[in-house]
Amino acid sequence: MIVRNAVSKAAFNPDKMGKVSLAMTENLFAGLNTFEAGQEHKLHTHQGQDKIYFVLRGAGEVAVGEEQARIEEGDLVVAEAGEEHALRNPGPGRLVVMVLMAPPPKPKAG
Amino acid sequence: MIVRNAVSKAAFNPDKMGKVSLAMTENLFAGLNTFEAGQEHKLHTHQGQDKIYFVLRGAGEVAVGEEQARIEEGDLVVAEAGEEHALRNPGPGRLVVMVLMAPPPKPKAG
Repeated sequence: MIVRNAVSKAAFNPDKMGKVSLAMTENLFAGLNTFEAGQEHKLHTHQGQDKIYFVLRGAGEVAVGEEQARIEEGDLVVAEAGEEHALRNPGPGRLVVMVLMAPPPKPKAG
Repeated sequence: MIVRNAVSKAAFNPDKMGKVSLAMTENLFAGLNTFEAGQEHKLHTHQGQDKIYFVLRGAGEVAVGEEQARIEEGDLVVAEAGEEHALRNPGPGRLVVMVLMAPPPKPKAG
């Protein structure tokens, strides 16, 4: 399957971080997380799932494990299973990151 | 873990496609495949592993399942486990793709 110009699929949510699914296989999920200025994904962990963020547009402030840093286009962040991570867009521009998760998230009931 | 400016890690091999490892976790591998003009990764499959290509620099000709297409910066390609895929750089420029594999490849013996 080919997804053209992945960043063009970005959709924003005025109320909270936006989530877009690009591809889901048995072992791997690819999507976008989108952040208006000031939006964030608060500190959290995934048990049994590894995550990669790859910055496509804009800049953000990431926390992962013991690290805290500003990240920019082309930077990659790895949060291993059980490792706390958070991502925030300090603005003024929008932030779009590609998210890879393995294994993929399970569909929510209902 | 943070990898700054992932595409800057690209290393080329004059003899064949170059491979660079960026990150390896229990469930996920991230790396770069690099192609000088004319280089290719011939048609192959991975049993039990899903792969994503994401084009970082340049353009390529991809085959995946029944699809054949030219892909450019920002395009994403998904090759599910058992699905044949190939990637070629027709030139004249260099081609760099990010590769995600889940589960990750096993270290080769020896």
